[in-house]
Amino acid sequence: MFTLHKKDGNARLGTLKLAHGDVQTPIFMPVGTVGSVKTMVPEDLHKLGAEIILGNTYHLYIRPGLEVIREFGGLHGFVGWNRPILTDSGGFQIFSLANQRKIDETGARFQSHLDGKLIHLTPELAVEIQETLGADIHMVLDECTSHPATYQQAANSMRRSMRWAARSRAARTRPELAQFGIVQGSMYEDLRTESIEALTAMNFEGYSIGGLSVGEPKPDMRRITKHCCDRLPEDKPRYLMGVGTPLDLIESIDAGVDMFDCVMPTRNGRNGTLFTSKGRVNIKNTRYRLEKAPLDENCACYTCQNFSLSYLRHLFMAKEYTAQRLLTLHNLTYYLKLIHDIRAAIAEGTFKDLLAHHQGLWET
Amino acid sequence: MFTLHKKDGNARLGTLKLAHGDVQTPIFMPVGTVGSVKTMVPEDLHKLGAEIILGNTYHLYIRPGLEVIREFGGLHGFVGWNRPILTDSGGFQIFSLANQRKIDETGARFQSHLDGKLIHLTPELAVEIQETLGADIHMVLDECTSHPATYQQAANSMRRSMRWAARSRAARTRPELAQFGIVQGSMYEDLRTESIEALTAMNFEGYSIGGLSVGEPKPDMRRITKHCCDRLPEDKPRYLMGVGTPLDLIESIDAGVDMFDCVMPTRNGRNGTLFTSKGRVNIKNTRYRLEKAPLDENCACYTCQNFSLSYLRHLFMAKEYTAQRLLTLHNLTYYLKLIHDIRAAIAEGTFKDLLAHHQGLWET
Repeated sequence: MFTLHKKDGNARLGTLKLAHGDVQTPIFMPVGTVGSVKTMVPEDLHKLGAEIILGNTYHLYIRPGLEVIREFGGLHGFVGWNRPILTDSGGFQIFSLANQRKIDETGARFQSHLDGKLIHLTPELAVEIQETLGADIHMVLDECTSHPATYQQAANSMRRSMRWAARSRAARTRPELAQFGIVQGSMYEDLRTESIEALTAMNFEGYSIGGLSVGEPKPDMRRITKHCCDRLPEDKPRYLMGVGTPLDLIESIDAGVDMFDCVMPTRNGRNGTLFTSKGRVNIKNTRYRLEKAPLDENCACYTCQNFSLSYLRHLFMAKEYTAQRLLTLHNLTYYLKLIHDIRAAIAEGTFKDLLAHHQGLWET
Repeated sequence: MFTLHKKDGNARLGTLKLAHGDVQTPIFMPVGTVGSVKTMVPEDLHKLGAEIILGNTYHLYIRPGLEVIREFGGLHGFVGWNRPILTDSGGFQIFSLANQRKIDETGARFQSHLDGKLIHLTPELAVEIQETLGADIHMVLDECTSHPATYQQAANSMRRSMRWAARSRAARTRPELAQFGIVQGSMYEDLRTESIEALTAMNFEGYSIGGLSVGEPKPDMRRITKHCCDRLPEDKPRYLMGVGTPLDLIESIDAGVDMFDCVMPTRNGRNGTLFTSKGRVNIKNTRYRLEKAPLDENCACYTCQNFSLSYLRHLFMAKEYTAQRLLTLHNLTYYLKLIHDIRAAIAEGTFKDLLAHHQGLWET
């Protein structure tokens, strides 16, 4: 399923062969939580060159629900997207959204944040939901260990996740869809190593690094990412979940990560924080009131090719829907262009130059 | 500026020659209050075949303000739209939005609804603002008579608007931009006639019918529209402001109206009420939960060509931004397609058939 083409240091260039087509790595996956990347339509995503998008098991299970998804033969048919989709397992949302959750060995019992309905999400149900969604890549259900955690809390939580991973692996019925295990173990290297050994013994199609970007200091995130990449198998893709800033992506690729998802380009776009070739731009800044230049002179997106900072600021201040869309479009373009630049740099053996440039550009 | 090509009954087919290009009539103008048609970008509007859009003097004057607009040489440059724009004068918004307004012979004093700043909007200032905006068609400042109004109230209000119209006509400095007078007189035929006589003596490039769609019964609206059209000059365009439903458009065209603007397709789209070839659709209806058919099988818009009612309902219920956009796109497509169908019917002499079809389709 995964072919590694080239390495430049630890940065990797590869191809994922998935049920709905090939995906080049490194890859950034825009997040379409409930079945749409906010403010975007599939036509936009095609133009942006998005190769794979993310859907959310928890959200889609509680709304619209599997009965609707089945009617359309899966998520692709329902949302009108014919390229690969990755779904997470719902583990993270149980912790961040659900009310009155109770975790035990069987799985998680919780109330839907929409209607209070009781749900018992087991590793087996998470597999069933994701096979019904028909996403090209599935995640096993895991317990996202909260931060900070004592060694014993982290060990217990990780080991339960490993038992759930084994049940998830056993439960699947659609082997044409890839299933990824999720490495846990909080900030403890030996627990991460134990988790990797447990998961690799189950021979997943790929491995996610979970339990990061949950409030820990950046050096911890970098340290654990590096520790995991050094021990994960070379011939399988590595996915760092929920990360991150442009510099997070680049530094993680430098450690050996292949795949990313994050709400940052879409959410920050809607909130008026933009990523540009010259660094961060806050669109609310009064200095842009009369600014005729585009947001980013080096950007080929529709927003930068057609509108001034002044107009974008005006639309944002006036809370116009169009602002959310134009700013999201720019940020996604920035992220996907960055990924293309990174691929080119790895291919040319100049990845470290790109890394150094961005370390100078962004505040760490 | 206006060429009348053909009549079918009182329905008219014409062409407006404007500073930024030609516009065929009858025409529906999407509303871009503060400089964008909500959820749309110019590229969408071009694809939709929108020939002219509306901007709002009151809103644009208080934000971003004339200093910004001047920097871009006018509204076209600021918003990135190179086809015709019509601006209203701000009269309606003074009544609906401003705080502590005070009208006297000089004009209107009011506080901005944004920052409380005091503004004295005179007929002359309304001309200056609109000439700075550089819109192809301007409206004179008028007093939008509230409904109901006694005969004397309506007469006093209308006569003041006529004096303001004369001042507006005298104040303009850019004759290449069209200026429209606005007929007032509430529901009183003789006052409407008096208003038309006053305005036509000033020889405006076109005439708006104002003071309708302000809460009066539909028969009153139809009666006054017909009364005005029967008396307005044949060789000038007639613009019914702020109207309306698809049937309102068709019945008003049957009376002799050429131009319309209304927030209905955009606002109703965002609120989940859609106009289709089979009538109104409320997207929230549970009957659409599993519906694989598109919103309108006879519609060529991106929304109807790519998505099911089920998916659109899901996006709407989940309050996704993408729903607002897809539903707005459909409603605008419906309105602009309707206008094209009406033009074709007038050209073929079958307008009365189209009218009868829609009288059967929509509840009056």
